[in-house]
Amino acid sequence: MNDADVLARLSELGHELPTPTAPMAAYVPCVISGTAAYVAGQVPFVDGKVLHPGLLGDTVTVEQGAEAAAKAALQVLAVLRDALGGSFERLVRIVQVGVFVAATPAFTEHPKVGNGASELLVAALGEAGKHARAAVGMASLPLGASVEVTVIAEVTPA
Amino acid sequence: MNDADVLARLSELGHELPTPTAPMAAYVPCVISGTAAYVAGQVPFVDGKVLHPGLLGDTVTVEQGAEAAAKAALQVLAVLRDALGGSFERLVRIVQVGVFVAATPAFTEHPKVGNGASELLVAALGEAGKHARAAVGMASLPLGASVEVTVIAEVTPA
Amino acid sequence: MNDADVLARLSELGHELPTPTAPMAAYVPCVISGTAAYVAGQVPFVDGKVLHPGLLGDTVTVEQGAEAAAKAALQVLAVLRDALGGSFERLVRIVQVGVFVAATPAFTEHPKVGNGASELLVAALGEAGKHARAAVGMASLPLGASVEVTVIAEVTPA
Repeated sequence: MNDADVLARLSELGHELPTPTAPMAAYVPCVISGTAAYVAGQVPFVDGKVLHPGLLGDTVTVEQGAEAAAKAALQVLAVLRDALGGSFERLVRIVQVGVFVAATPAFTEHPKVGNGASELLVAALGEAGKHARAAVGMASLPLGASVEVTVIAEVTPA
Repeated sequence: MNDADVLARLSELGHELPTPTAPMAAYVPCVISGTAAYVAGQVPFVDGKVLHPGLLGDTVTVEQGAEAAAKAALQVLAVLRDALGGSFERLVRIVQVGVFVAATPAFTEHPKVGNGASELLVAALGEAGKHARAAVGMASLPLGASVEVTVIAEVTPA
Repeated sequence: MNDADVLARLSELGHELPTPTAPMAAYVPCVISGTAAYVAGQVPFVDGKVLHPGLLGDTVTVEQGAEAAAKAALQVLAVLRDALGGSFERLVRIVQVGVFVAATPAFTEHPKVGNGASELLVAALGEAGKHARAAVGMASLPLGASVEVTVIAEVTPA
């Protein structure tokens, strides 16, 4: 991917890549093995606070959940770019996205929440942003977050 | 795998490959990266309706859950075959299976539910159907489904 | 990795590799595809019984959850070594770790539980033990376990 193009598309959408957040614990933000880059689970932060904490189907609306998912996907892009040496040049495509949604037993609209992440990735990367996905309901997530996003991407070898 | 052999084995078991269902949202059914094919999460459908919705440990029995998992695995095979150009010829083996089971906190028989998917894959593909697996309990799943199945398969390059 | 070095490090920490447990169901403990080894979900056992069953945020403490996660990670190492022919020689690094934590909706400390697994892997393998991770809260897990751990590792081809 052309780095400047991706940054320009994000900017048009009103998004700026955040500074990659340090992992909350004893692991690293991204591991590249061969042509696969595994990004650690991202919980959405704004100004150091979790964005829209709580459960879908309870206090968090579908719109808020989708916004949280988009924010987490933006953090995924920031982590990926950082792991690739500060440019999207080596990014080939997004491969798999996991959207973990903290939800009540009665909640059914996980796909709409997941779309927040999926649509941001496609808006930023075009065809290369299209991915296989699973969006599923969790009992709870770190720090009370409503959404956590994981990504596997294809990259060119270093 | 020989395409006709796999279809014959499924037919002997009384299964017919369904038409791959379109993703419920902004993603694609399968992404192939190198020799790995990632299939998006499949929720079991029959005639356009979710098969056995609800929670394991509540209104859905282990037998129903296993049936739902088998149906979702059948859809995985349909998606894989479609992504490989309408034949299992390029399928080398199933590698990893995730079985997400919507369940109550007290439910403990996730492995029996997961077996519905695992046994269908081995019945259809023989040794090549054997896989590493995780079967875990979710708070809820898209559309109220009781089971969702994801798969990573090994394929020969295009 | 040097096999004797890894065993020595584990021994210094007071850990002994357990005999790999047979899968609870119709799947295999580990599948190697190219340079990626996928280890099936490990639930922690001691003397044939699940270690610290129950839910985090309910009857299981964070310390017990972390201990359960460490034990599951130790079983992952035992399975990996077995799949690699009884030696860590072919193990290049740990790539991705999933820590599934059975938890209440109000639980927030999943990262501390996950650290039980992450810290064991880094203690045993050094730099090669560092990984991308997601730690998330589940409604329930097989056999009432409080923690289940999955791993993808990079290995050298056979």
